[in-house]
Amino acid sequence: MTAGTVSSSRSQRPPLWPVPHAAITFRDGFWAPRLKLNRERTLPAIQEQLERLGRFDAVNLEWRPGQQLEPEFLWTTDFTEWIEVASFHLAVQRDPAIEALVDKVVHYIGLSQQPDGYLDQRVHPTSVEERWLDLRDSHRLYAAGHLFEAAVAYFRATGKRDLLEIACRYADHIDQVFGRGEGQICGYDGHEEIELALVKLYRATGEERYLRLASYFVDERGQAPNFFEQELGSHGADDYFQRQGLPWRAEYNQSHLPVREQTEVVGHAVRAMYLYCAMADLAVELGDESLLHACRRLWKHLTSTRLYVIGGLGSTYRNEGMTEDYDLPNEAAYCETCAACGLVFWNHRLLHAELDGRYTDLMERAMYNNVAAGISLDGSRFFYDNKLATAGDHHRTEWFKVACCPPNVARLLASLGEYVHSQGDAEVVVHLYVRCDARLDLAGQRVTLHQETDYPWDGTIRIAVEPEQNLHFVLRLRVPGWCRHATLAVNGEVLQRAPDRGYVSVDRTWRAGDEVVLDLDMPVERVRAHPKVRADAGRVALQRGPIVYCLESVDNGPNLESLSLADDAPVDATFRHELLGGVVTLQARAERADESSWDRALYSTTVQDRAETELTAVPYATWDNREPGEMLVWVREC
Amino acid sequence: MTAGTVSSSRSQRPPLWPVPHAAITFRDGFWAPRLKLNRERTLPAIQEQLERLGRFDAVNLEWRPGQQLEPEFLWTTDFTEWIEVASFHLAVQRDPAIEALVDKVVHYIGLSQQPDGYLDQRVHPTSVEERWLDLRDSHRLYAAGHLFEAAVAYFRATGKRDLLEIACRYADHIDQVFGRGEGQICGYDGHEEIELALVKLYRATGEERYLRLASYFVDERGQAPNFFEQELGSHGADDYFQRQGLPWRAEYNQSHLPVREQTEVVGHAVRAMYLYCAMADLAVELGDESLLHACRRLWKHLTSTRLYVIGGLGSTYRNEGMTEDYDLPNEAAYCETCAACGLVFWNHRLLHAELDGRYTDLMERAMYNNVAAGISLDGSRFFYDNKLATAGDHHRTEWFKVACCPPNVARLLASLGEYVHSQGDAEVVVHLYVRCDARLDLAGQRVTLHQETDYPWDGTIRIAVEPEQNLHFVLRLRVPGWCRHATLAVNGEVLQRAPDRGYVSVDRTWRAGDEVVLDLDMPVERVRAHPKVRADAGRVALQRGPIVYCLESVDNGPNLESLSLADDAPVDATFRHELLGGVVTLQARAERADESSWDRALYSTTVQDRAETELTAVPYATWDNREPGEMLVWVREC
Repeated sequence: MTAGTVSSSRSQRPPLWPVPHAAITFRDGFWAPRLKLNRERTLPAIQEQLERLGRFDAVNLEWRPGQQLEPEFLWTTDFTEWIEVASFHLAVQRDPAIEALVDKVVHYIGLSQQPDGYLDQRVHPTSVEERWLDLRDSHRLYAAGHLFEAAVAYFRATGKRDLLEIACRYADHIDQVFGRGEGQICGYDGHEEIELALVKLYRATGEERYLRLASYFVDERGQAPNFFEQELGSHGADDYFQRQGLPWRAEYNQSHLPVREQTEVVGHAVRAMYLYCAMADLAVELGDESLLHACRRLWKHLTSTRLYVIGGLGSTYRNEGMTEDYDLPNEAAYCETCAACGLVFWNHRLLHAELDGRYTDLMERAMYNNVAAGISLDGSRFFYDNKLATAGDHHRTEWFKVACCPPNVARLLASLGEYVHSQGDAEVVVHLYVRCDARLDLAGQRVTLHQETDYPWDGTIRIAVEPEQNLHFVLRLRVPGWCRHATLAVNGEVLQRAPDRGYVSVDRTWRAGDEVVLDLDMPVERVRAHPKVRADAGRVALQRGPIVYCLESVDNGPNLESLSLADDAPVDATFRHELLGGVVTLQARAERADESSWDRALYSTTVQDRAETELTAVPYATWDNREPGEMLVWVREC
Repeated sequence: MTAGTVSSSRSQRPPLWPVPHAAITFRDGFWAPRLKLNRERTLPAIQEQLERLGRFDAVNLEWRPGQQLEPEFLWTTDFTEWIEVASFHLAVQRDPAIEALVDKVVHYIGLSQQPDGYLDQRVHPTSVEERWLDLRDSHRLYAAGHLFEAAVAYFRATGKRDLLEIACRYADHIDQVFGRGEGQICGYDGHEEIELALVKLYRATGEERYLRLASYFVDERGQAPNFFEQELGSHGADDYFQRQGLPWRAEYNQSHLPVREQTEVVGHAVRAMYLYCAMADLAVELGDESLLHACRRLWKHLTSTRLYVIGGLGSTYRNEGMTEDYDLPNEAAYCETCAACGLVFWNHRLLHAELDGRYTDLMERAMYNNVAAGISLDGSRFFYDNKLATAGDHHRTEWFKVACCPPNVARLLASLGEYVHSQGDAEVVVHLYVRCDARLDLAGQRVTLHQETDYPWDGTIRIAVEPEQNLHFVLRLRVPGWCRHATLAVNGEVLQRAPDRGYVSVDRTWRAGDEVVLDLDMPVERVRAHPKVRADAGRVALQRGPIVYCLESVDNGPNLESLSLADDAPVDATFRHELLGGVVTLQARAERADESSWDRALYSTTVQDRAETELTAVPYATWDNREPGEMLVWVREC
C-alpha cells in the first residue's frame, strides 16, 4: 500500500491492541494511591481552577466580540482536556454530578457551533480566511483535536453521543475545508494533535474520511514550499516568535521536511511527540511501513542523543524543546510534563505497531520518573518543566497560564490501566508490573489475571491466570531492558527462556489456578552518560529497576554539588513505608567537601578537605514533596 | 572630617600617587606588543567603526529633530571614549593627524553646547524637566562623565584646553542643576561614571566645586525615598526593565542604600565598579574613612563570594551583573570586559588609599586574565562578555551595538604604564613586574628604573636603580599573594624581609648601578573553589604566577568536559615562543572518557572506559585566537 492512501475495506484487526483501562483494578502502593487521588483530588482541583478562572462562566456566554470574559487562546482545550480526564474516571465509575456538569458544558459548546460545523469559542468569523488565519500559532486545529479526544472518551465512558456528534460535525467541516482540492486550504496546524485525534475519532465511529484526513495532515506536513512560510504574511507585530525573541524555524513544529524524510527529533517537544503518535497510528491503520520506518529512525535518534535519563525530552525553555545532540543540561532542562506524556503515548503506539520491549522500557521510564514527577503526591500541584538539578528555586504550582500539563498528566493517570496489558486474538501481553486485577475478553472467554508484586520496589511478580475454562493462548511477559537476569517459572517449574525483543512467552493451555512467577534482578545500578553529554561528565545517576533516583537537600543538607560518590561505594536499598507514600530509598557512604576549613576564602591552592558522609537518594518522581530545597539527579563521582 | 564635606584648604598631598603612563616604556613580550597594536590597530579600528556607523557625519549635523542620522543613546560616549584612548597615546607620542580629527570633533561638540553649558548631541530641550528626564536609564550624566574624562586626558596629553573648557562649562551647569538646594534636582545618574570623572576634572583644574559635586552625587545615592522610584512616573511602555523582562530593583544601580551602608556588591557590575571608584577617590581626596571602610567591606564581599577566578565579575547577562553569593556559573558567566576594567580602576584607587598587596593582586589578576582576554591578539576583535567555558559558540566580534568594551579595554591598555609604579615624597613602589624603563621625578631628581624580567612567564625580576645623584628613598616591591616563597637581594646581598601587606621595602641611599633582584617562586598551582561554588565542584583551575589557564579544543580535541586531571598528576610548564605571541603552556597526563566503546548508547550501566591522554592548557587571556572551538577553565578532577 502506498503512503497516504486508505484501503476502502479495512478488515484486518491489528495484531495487538490495549486492554481498556476500565478492565484493570490497581491494588499497588505506587499507582493505586495516585489514581485514587487523581479522581478525588486532581479532577476536582482542575474543575476548581476552571471555575476560579471564569471558564464555566465564559462558556455560557456564547461570546461575541466586546463582551466581558473574552475566551482566550486555548480555553476550549482547558475544557475538553478536563472532559477527557473526567471521562476516563467515568469509564471506571459513573458519577451523575460530574456528568451533569460535563453535559452542561457540552450543551454550551454545541450552542457555539456554527451551522456548517465550525466551532470556536473565541470568534465566529464567517469567511474561511478569517476562521483559519494563522494556523501556525492559533492552535485552532489543535483545539479541535482535543475536542475530538474528549468526545471519544466521553462517548466510550457514558455512551452519550452529543459531544461525539459535535465533534463529527466539526471534523466533517474541517474535512471539507482542508485538503489538496480546489478551494481547499492546503495546510495543517502549527501544533500537531488533530492528526492523532482524527484516528481516535475514526476508531470510535468507523468513518474512514477521518482517517484519510489524519493521513492528509501528516503527509502534507513539511512539503515544499513550507505552508507556514507562505502564511507568514498574515502575522503581525504580535508574532509569537518575535515576542519570544526566537527566529522562526520550520523545525519548531516539524514542518521542515516531509515526515518520512525526518531523521532527527527537532523543535517543540510536545508537538514532535504528538506528530509521531499520529505517524505510529497511521502506520498501524494503513499498514504503512514507511511511516513506521520514520518512527524507528526518530526513536533511535532521540534515545541515542537527546533523551534525559528520567524519560523526558526538551533541553531548553526557549523553544520548549530540542537543541543539539548530547545537549542535556540538568538545571536548564525543560522536560515538559506534556512531552513525557507524549513520549508515553508514542511508545505505547509503537509497541502495538511492533512489539519490542525497548519501546516499553522507554514508556516505563517516562511514566515512573518524568510523568510521575509532574504531579505532587497530594495530587494538587504540578510541574510544567522538570529539571534534573536545582539550587532550590524550582517547585510545583497549582496551575499555569497555559494549562496543558495538569490535565495531560491527569488523563494519563486516569487511563493508566490501558498501558498494563495488550491482547491479540490468542495472546496476552503484560507490559507493566503492578499489583492489579485485569479482566480480559479472549476468544469470547473472560480471562482474569491477578498480579501480586511489590514492583517497582521488588522484582518478584506472581501472576495468577484464571480463564473461565481451559484456554490455549500465549502469555508474553516483558523482561525490562534494565534487568540483567530474570527467572521465569510456571506452576513452580523454571522455564529457560531467552527474551525475544524484550518479552518471554509461555504458549500453553491455561487452567484456573495456574501461576507464573517472574523474578527480575533489581540491583542498584550506576548509570553513566555518553562522554559527549557535557552536563553529565564525571557524574553518575542512581537507578534501581525503573526508578531513577535523586538527592534532595532535605535528606542530605545543603549544597548537593559538594557531595561525591566513589565508584566502588556500596549503595544500599531500603524500603521505607513511612516516607513519601512508601518508597525504596538508597543510602551510600560518600564524601563531602568540607567547608569548615575554608574560612572566608573563595579560592584556594591548598584547601581540599573532604569529610565522609552518608548520602540518601529518593525516587525522582517523589521529589519536592517535603521541605523545599535543592535537588540533583547526576551526582559527582570521586 | 565628616562625610561629604570638603576642606576649603586642602594642602596635603596624598601619600602615594601613580607614576604617569607616559613615563614608562614597555619592552616586554606580553604587554609591549599589545600596546603597540593598541595604537597601530585598535585605535584606528575604533575610528573606522565610528566612521562606518556614521558617527563622524552625525556629530557634524548639529542635529535637530527630524534630521537623518539621529544621534542615538550613547553616541557622545562613543566619541569621548575614543578621544580618551587617543589622548593616552598622544601623551606618549603626539600625532597631528589624530589631533586634527579630535579637534574637529571637539569643535562640533562645542557647537552643540547650549549657552548655559548643557550638552547633548541628541536633543536640545530647554526645560530642566525635559533635559534631565529619565535619569535612571538615559545615561546623560554618564555621558557627561566620559566627556570629562576625555577632556582631562586630551588636556594632559596635548595642553589643548578647548574640550576641557567645554567640560567645565557643562560641569558648572550640572553643578547648578543638581543638589539639595531649592529648585535643584536632588537626584543622580542611573549609571555611575560622572562621580569619578568629576574627581578627575577637579584634579586637572583644582576647582573644588567639582569635588563637592562628586561627593554630593555619591552621598545622595540610595538616600530614602529612592530617587528613581520617585522618578518612575516618567517611564513609559518602552521602559528598559520591561523590555528586558526584569523587575526593577534599586540594587541594579546601587541606589538601594546609602553608599556607606552598602555591604554587598550587587546589581550591574560596571555601575558598581564605577561607583566604588568614586568612593575610593573621595576617601582619598576628603580623607573620608567611612567611604574607605565601605569600600573594604564591599571588596571583602566581592572577593569572598562573587569574584571569578579570571578576575571578573557578573554572573548573568540579565542584569549584566551580580546574582547570589557563590553563584559563579562558567558557561553562563557574564564577566563583562568593562567590569574587569572597572575592577582594575577600583583596585588601583584602593591601593593608593591604603597600600595593600591584596588590591594589587586583584588588579593584576583582572589585567592578565579577564581584561587581556577582552581583546584579540591582533587588536581588532573584542569580547563583551567573557565566559569561563563554552561549547564553541562564543567568539570575539569587531564591534557592539552598545560599544563600551572596545574603548574601555583600549584606554586601559593605552594607559597601562600608570599601573606599574606609584611614588610618594620619598618612596617608589613597584606594583607590577614587566620589562620596562621608568623615568620618575623624586625629590626634584630624575630616577630611572630598568626592570629586566620575563614576567609573567618567569619569576625573576632584576631592577636597576639609576638616580641622577645618590638619593635616599624607600623602594617597595610587591610580593604577589600567589607567591609562596620570594627572595630579595640588593647588589647580590640577600635580605631577609617579610612582606608587609604584600610589599617588601628597601630603605637606603641609592646609587647609580644598584641592582635589586626579586625571585618569585612560580610553580603551577591547582586552584579550587569554595565548596559552595556549585559550578566548580570537583574541578580545578590551573594557574601559574598571575596567569589563569584554560583548555581549548584546538589543543585538546573536542569535548573538553570528557577530560579529567588527577590531583597528583605533574603539570609541566613550557615556554613556546612561536605560540600566541609567546606564552608558557601547561602540559599534563590526563584521562579522557573513551567514546569508542559507547557505540550508539546514550546511557550505560556498564561502560566507563577511560584512556590516557595529554592535556595542554594555554593562558586564558589568549584563547579564541586560533581555530574556533570549545574552551574550559575549570577542569574536572579525577
